Amino acid sequence: MNGAESLVHTLLASGVDTCFANPGTSEMHFVAALDRVPGMRCVLGLFEGVVTGAADGYARMAGKPAATLLHCGPGLANALANLHNGRRANTMMVNCVGDQATYHRPLDAPLTADTEGFARGVSGWVRTATHAEHVGADAAVAVQAAQTSPGQIATLILPSDTCWNPGGVVAKPLPVPPAPQATPHAIQTAARILRSGEKVLLVLGNGALRAGALADAHRIAAATGADMLAQGSNGRIERGIGRHPINRVPYPVDQAVERLKGVRHVILIGAIKPVIFFAYPGKPGSPVPADANVHVMTRPEHDQASALAALAEELGAAPVPAPDYGARPDPAKGAVSSEAFAQSLTALLPENAIVADESVTFGRAIYPNTHGAARHDWLSVTGGAIGGGIPLATGAAVAAPGRRVVNLQADGSAMYTIQGLWTQAREKLDVTTVIFSNRKYAILLHELANVGANPGRTALDMLDLGSPDLDFVKMAAGMGVEGARATTMEQFNDLFTQSTTRSGPFVIELMI
Amino acid sequence: MNGAESLVHTLLASGVDTCFANPGTSEMHFVAALDRVPGMRCVLGLFEGVVTGAADGYARMAGKPAATLLHCGPGLANALANLHNGRRANTMMVNCVGDQATYHRPLDAPLTADTEGFARGVSGWVRTATHAEHVGADAAVAVQAAQTSPGQIATLILPSDTCWNPGGVVAKPLPVPPAPQATPHAIQTAARILRSGEKVLLVLGNGALRAGALADAHRIAAATGADMLAQGSNGRIERGIGRHPINRVPYPVDQAVERLKGVRHVILIGAIKPVIFFAYPGKPGSPVPADANVHVMTRPEHDQASALAALAEELGAAPVPAPDYGARPDPAKGAVSSEAFAQSLTALLPENAIVADESVTFGRAIYPNTHGAARHDWLSVTGGAIGGGIPLATGAAVAAPGRRVVNLQADGSAMYTIQGLWTQAREKLDVTTVIFSNRKYAILLHELANVGANPGRTALDMLDLGSPDLDFVKMAAGMGVEGARATTMEQFNDLFTQSTTRSGPFVIELMI
Repeated sequence: MNGAESLVHTLLASGVDTCFANPGTSEMHFVAALDRVPGMRCVLGLFEGVVTGAADGYARMAGKPAATLLHCGPGLANALANLHNGRRANTMMVNCVGDQATYHRPLDAPLTADTEGFARGVSGWVRTATHAEHVGADAAVAVQAAQTSPGQIATLILPSDTCWNPGGVVAKPLPVPPAPQATPHAIQTAARILRSGEKVLLVLGNGALRAGALADAHRIAAATGADMLAQGSNGRIERGIGRHPINRVPYPVDQAVERLKGVRHVILIGAIKPVIFFAYPGKPGSPVPADANVHVMTRPEHDQASALAALAEELGAAPVPAPDYGARPDPAKGAVSSEAFAQSLTALLPENAIVADESVTFGRAIYPNTHGAARHDWLSVTGGAIGGGIPLATGAAVAAPGRRVVNLQADGSAMYTIQGLWTQAREKLDVTTVIFSNRKYAILLHELANVGANPGRTALDMLDLGSPDLDFVKMAAGMGVEGARATTMEQFNDLFTQSTTRSGPFVIELMI
Repeated sequence: MNGAESLVHTLLASGVDTCFANPGTSEMHFVAALDRVPGMRCVLGLFEGVVTGAADGYARMAGKPAATLLHCGPGLANALANLHNGRRANTMMVNCVGDQATYHRPLDAPLTADTEGFARGVSGWVRTATHAEHVGADAAVAVQAAQTSPGQIATLILPSDTCWNPGGVVAKPLPVPPAPQATPHAIQTAARILRSGEKVLLVLGNGALRAGALADAHRIAAATGADMLAQGSNGRIERGIGRHPINRVPYPVDQAVERLKGVRHVILIGAIKPVIFFAYPGKPGSPVPADANVHVMTRPEHDQASALAALAEELGAAPVPAPDYGARPDPAKGAVSSEAFAQSLTALLPENAIVADESVTFGRAIYPNTHGAARHDWLSVTGGAIGGGIPLATGAAVAAPGRRVVNLQADGSAMYTIQGLWTQAREKLDVTTVIFSNRKYAILLHELANVGANPGRTALDMLDLGSPDLDFVKMAAGMGVEGARATTMEQFNDLFTQSTTRSGPFVIELMI
């Protein structure tokens, strides 16, 4: 057995049975091993950012890591932006990065690069294999590292001779340490603050955004009058009819500051202290009032569900039913707007859908106005590295067959990883991609205004995606995905409904 | 004057007047400064790999650096693969990477990443600006570093407050140190070896591949019987009618070893010791015979033209006219092959064209059989990071208006930076892109065979780009570039000729 075969066997033994891949020469022994070792589903991406973004979406929905297969330092480099997003979602992932043979590296062949250096900034765990005999053990540790709460990126770099040499040994799965429990002291401290009568805000992240944990957060809020918000960007929120809603810390600095005004205590439950996305001259870096106290009840790696249940018990808080969101609205008619879109999505989202959200500026009104849609999961681009949406949707669809994935996708961001549409066609994934086509980097126009500039021709040209106009229907067709354009809500409603009642991917270019 | 304005003024004063850009929020002051400071041509790319690949192609043809504008760590990450290629070409480039404000970074906002860490592996020079007052001086040093022979990547990271704060000071251009001259001893040693009567191979790289240097290399070879080859991948080779030809070290290991068989002395002139692209079990890592002596006459940073002229003088070698390549052939007819394509290209390439070559497997016969085409420059993807071709062509066209750029482009590689077509349409660049469409990662099928695998379904699926077929004509249309498909050489000849006699970009999808 060579090192590559021991790697594939060990991944499978550790429960990793899906591999998103963009292989090259140095990974040919891994590819050959896949033929000889049955059981690994391989999904090809035409660009590495698609591969890692899809592995991120997969893990968020599957609750276990996928493997990725990447080619040398530059292949890993192309994967980094979506690894950054995955890191910010605390996503479990095992990257297998082929590289120059151990003895070939000193010759500095053209593709030789600082692969470990590229990996460090996005990985919680990095190792370069040195011998075929150890590759199995290396892989088992990588899977264990990836699964250690709250989840992390593990990158195993595999010089090609560690894959082709004989002597591979399959390693047994290693135990995954359970998520740590909040201490009784942390629970009691939170309870004391909540009973103080002062204005308290719970900020929830990670596991605190699953349905059970949110139900307990609502018990706590109802019993104490506390306010609650989710972090601005989150890996996964369980929401919709029958579940308890939560809003998010707003993105615009002024709105965020306004929203948190008067808060005396912030209790962090699986979240980090709220921070504004970017600094602006003369504005605060965090929306938390300067005189507020910030308490850490649980860190992201803690078991959030048990901590919230314990806090609710400590407070003697009674269960609260999920709100009655009322009858589903009719789909919106007429002109396209963020609010109209939210109305149509609430009306038409199929039961048990998954929303992959990279809607950026147009999305402003969508999340806050879709609490009453059918039960669904909401996945965000967590690290702000654009180009996350199409890959996230792709991976989520691989993880959750039978569920419709709806990708809310800004046009500028779509162009970073447009190649992901091909993987959707190839794998016949049930993804409806809605491209919000405004033909500009709209968010940057806001930001330019924020810096007080009165933009002239040069600046405006840099933020303009027209001239020539992008045609996403043609691009999708070029990658084997059917699509159509909508300019009114009625057209959108029809196309969206059609897309959710057939199988396979579909692109709707919505002119906004 | 704020820091951003001092940056733009300093770049212009240092002769950097072209900026390839994909800006984000943290770069809005730079964008605003472009409005207030005239003279900088800005070229927008829809993905950062397009931006840096274009800056690479620009510098190779312009002989001076372009600036790039990139957004935070993840934006730089997307740019790394083509920075790796640029590093391998010793390309001059000045990256301006906006980042979190100095005081905002500790808050760990979502986009915060290890920007310096990402930059290190691809940059010869890295600095993070700390104060608006110093940004001008930082920029002047960056341009000096970029231009220091043989050229390098300089990366200046600009926290947003260093751009928006007042106090910016325009810096004067710094002197660029001249390329070092080869020592008389190195020239004399090379001459002694060449007179030894033993089999000598000159390996040429970097500046030794310009027309004047190649003419002197041919004088030397004619006088001494020495053999000569260029490195496998090169930033720029001047070739075609009226110039002296040079072949390259072959890519396939067996061919390379065969080609260098019997060589007793290798003299490196602006090149590094030849190395095989990847290691293979039981094969050598370098094609240079184990018992050959390797002499360094000049390193890549030396002045190659003066060194070769001095060596020719030392040997008393008489000038040799460029070969008579004979009458131009007729364009090829019938079935498409690498040889037929080379024949048509030799027949039809316009005078003073630029070829950006990412033809990969199909390109096998093209370079060796186009020495007799009209005078042109040949640019390769130097670092083996695929996705270089479309951006290189884009940047070369920006640098050399009035010259037709021909991009020989493998289909799999094209998908990494397909967004570059949009920039070609927007800037109305004279680029003819020929996509060699075999609908597979053909090179990997060879490599899989090289590892001795008898590939099964799983492995073959991982190397297959059909299912669904990519349609490059549709994708190009989606980005505003006209295109057509050719299945015979006659169709190709017609489309190619049309494309070179009109202005603007055109895509030919050649079915191979």
